[in-house]
Amino acid sequence: MRMYDIITAKKRGEELSDEQIEFVIDAYTKGEIPDYQISALMMAIYFKGMTDKETATMTMAMAKSGDTIDLSEFGTLTVDKHSTGGVGDKTTLVIAPIAASLGCKVAKMSGRGLGHTGGTVDKLESFTGYKTSMDAEEFFECVRRCGMAVIGQSGNLAPADKKLYALRDVTATVDSIPLITASVMSKKLAAGSHSIVLDVKYGSGGFMKTPEDAERLACGMVEIGKRCGRSISALITCMDIPLGLAIGNSLEVKEALAVLSGGGPEDLKTVCIALATEMVMHSLGMGAAEAEAAVREAISSGKALSKFKEWIGAQGGSADYVSDTSLFPEAKFTHEVKSPKDGYVYSMNAEEIGIASVMLGAGRVTKDDSIDHSAGIILAKKTGDYTRCGDTIAVLYTNNEKKLADAEAAILAAIRFSDKRPELPALIYKTVR
Amino acid sequence: MRMYDIITAKKRGEELSDEQIEFVIDAYTKGEIPDYQISALMMAIYFKGMTDKETATMTMAMAKSGDTIDLSEFGTLTVDKHSTGGVGDKTTLVIAPIAASLGCKVAKMSGRGLGHTGGTVDKLESFTGYKTSMDAEEFFECVRRCGMAVIGQSGNLAPADKKLYALRDVTATVDSIPLITASVMSKKLAAGSHSIVLDVKYGSGGFMKTPEDAERLACGMVEIGKRCGRSISALITCMDIPLGLAIGNSLEVKEALAVLSGGGPEDLKTVCIALATEMVMHSLGMGAAEAEAAVREAISSGKALSKFKEWIGAQGGSADYVSDTSLFPEAKFTHEVKSPKDGYVYSMNAEEIGIASVMLGAGRVTKDDSIDHSAGIILAKKTGDYTRCGDTIAVLYTNNEKKLADAEAAILAAIRFSDKRPELPALIYKTVR
Repeated sequence: MRMYDIITAKKRGEELSDEQIEFVIDAYTKGEIPDYQISALMMAIYFKGMTDKETATMTMAMAKSGDTIDLSEFGTLTVDKHSTGGVGDKTTLVIAPIAASLGCKVAKMSGRGLGHTGGTVDKLESFTGYKTSMDAEEFFECVRRCGMAVIGQSGNLAPADKKLYALRDVTATVDSIPLITASVMSKKLAAGSHSIVLDVKYGSGGFMKTPEDAERLACGMVEIGKRCGRSISALITCMDIPLGLAIGNSLEVKEALAVLSGGGPEDLKTVCIALATEMVMHSLGMGAAEAEAAVREAISSGKALSKFKEWIGAQGGSADYVSDTSLFPEAKFTHEVKSPKDGYVYSMNAEEIGIASVMLGAGRVTKDDSIDHSAGIILAKKTGDYTRCGDTIAVLYTNNEKKLADAEAAILAAIRFSDKRPELPALIYKTVR
Repeated sequence: MRMYDIITAKKRGEELSDEQIEFVIDAYTKGEIPDYQISALMMAIYFKGMTDKETATMTMAMAKSGDTIDLSEFGTLTVDKHSTGGVGDKTTLVIAPIAASLGCKVAKMSGRGLGHTGGTVDKLESFTGYKTSMDAEEFFECVRRCGMAVIGQSGNLAPADKKLYALRDVTATVDSIPLITASVMSKKLAAGSHSIVLDVKYGSGGFMKTPEDAERLACGMVEIGKRCGRSISALITCMDIPLGLAIGNSLEVKEALAVLSGGGPEDLKTVCIALATEMVMHSLGMGAAEAEAAVREAISSGKALSKFKEWIGAQGGSADYVSDTSLFPEAKFTHEVKSPKDGYVYSMNAEEIGIASVMLGAGRVTKDDSIDHSAGIILAKKTGDYTRCGDTIAVLYTNNEKKLADAEAAILAAIRFSDKRPELPALIYKTVR
């Protein structure tokens, strides 16, 4: 089998055979195919696409390119959630304990934040002592005992994806739906959960800018998941504006705790209930109405909040912060950003708001940056809100006072004001099953 | 300037700026851009194309990426010819001495053969002692004295093209008209001749399979040549069947000498006269009729043949072979391939015939193979000829008897017979000026 012929076939728009795709993934992972041939193939795939069959084959080949986690002891109770990433997206912190409190098994590996979006593992490190890495036996034991565990990416999961993604990232071949699908789904397959709930974001802070593109991606991923034998569905949700009001690690944890306590911002609550409902439907085989009622009851009864506290403790974290959020270390400097005019917040670029929070210390620009867990932004106004000149639109938190001015300027640049009330995009655009 | 942004722009179909293209060529030549980014860009160019302006900028950037030859002392008399390559294509051996005998200056660098097509320099080495490399002063002196010189590629001409071509060759991005154009024309520009005559082949033995594709390529190359200030035209000629009857180095030299002596196969003679006429028109400023008459007179008077002999001698070769072709070393083994049936030769795959001649020792499979100058094929029948079962259709020449059977099988496989007389494709499809 010659790589040249494979590139040529794809260039002509032909469907690659299973053998060809498996050869590419296997040989590239082993270092037997040079980067320059793979990048040419990736660009040809960008232009010519892949069929669902090709994408499924590539996904499975990538999933088995390294370690896979065997969660079979939990039967069909295991359920994973994946978000395509967004600003202020703290849903995992809410829905995993809800699901676990109802009997689902959530054995989750989460990423760290890079660029304008935060990572769940970084948020969890707001709890002093929280262990983001555990050996396999500890991890399994935590899931058995507590019903859930969330750790960082560990082991050698889908190394083909790591290599391919790094190459695509520097050759402008990231934005290909079949390649995104294979990348996301290969990691989810290797991570072993029986059910998968996807949160595909659209809008200025999401990877897909329009709901239609997000739907195409969601449909592709759901199709591939099914082909690979998983129970799967996807919500297409809005990331045109940040989700909730808090952006930044411990600020987001506190907001997640507010939702688990029955409060919190409406948009965040709505998305969390919808995602948790999907998880429960897959994992426990309930119908939609029954699942949603169970989810709401898990919140109102305090069961989910108790589960959160149990979980943090089980992973070695300062669980007492859960009952008393004033224990989270606070940023030394705060600053109120004032509205420069009267009018509606007409739009708010979520990506730029995310970047402002990185400036304050809440995220990383490069992989080796350290994080200020108390830094970030609490929005006082969001798209659609009316503000008077001089009203507070956001509060900034940081331990580096020098960054306040830049972050304030970035936030003001991210917001457009208008006399007209804007039409708000659909928070949940669609569910793909 | 970031390579990532340049790939992205081309992927979107945008026109790259002069600065972007010059950056790519310059930095890649210096080794400052990795192959994997260039191969992604080449694939994006394959799909999105380049405008004439982009192609001209890339051509000029590649031309000046290394040494350039300054032929200005010869004014506008210098004329170069380039063929896109074919089987049995020995036109350079005929037309260069014709042009030089009429006062043109032909300072030519030619390639070696690789794959199914032969190289002019290999053919010239059929003359014992012929020097295919000379230093600059010798080369110029030969052109001054004799009106012509033909040597192998030397110096550091268009190194950007060498690097790019090697990469395109392994990433399936060779067949892009703007990239072919830039590759061919950058070398021609660096080689310095004022006028350029292109022979763009179409058909089974040519790079372009249809006359329409060949015309697109020819038009692009002529346009770029003009933009770069050269006097240029292109003939689109048929390479559906080999040109002439001889394939293989000394066999082709002898056929070229036959044409210069007033004989030789009609198709070869026709193409040579047309190409030489173009050269004379550009270089000496004659009209078409006047130029063609001069070319025919150069042959009939023996002037062109004398020039050939003078040239071979000037480059150190065994010029006595010119007057007595029996002096060329002959292959030890010959074999007649017989027709398996009565009928017309309906088609003849030129590429496969070329490959058969390589099997016999006439060409190289890899760059380091040595060549048997006496090996090759003389066709007795060509497409359109009627043959009876048992008639000789070709004679094979080799010093490696073991190769005869495979070569015979390859030739028989390359020929289709039919009761119907085939329509012959146009030998000269069009002239692009």
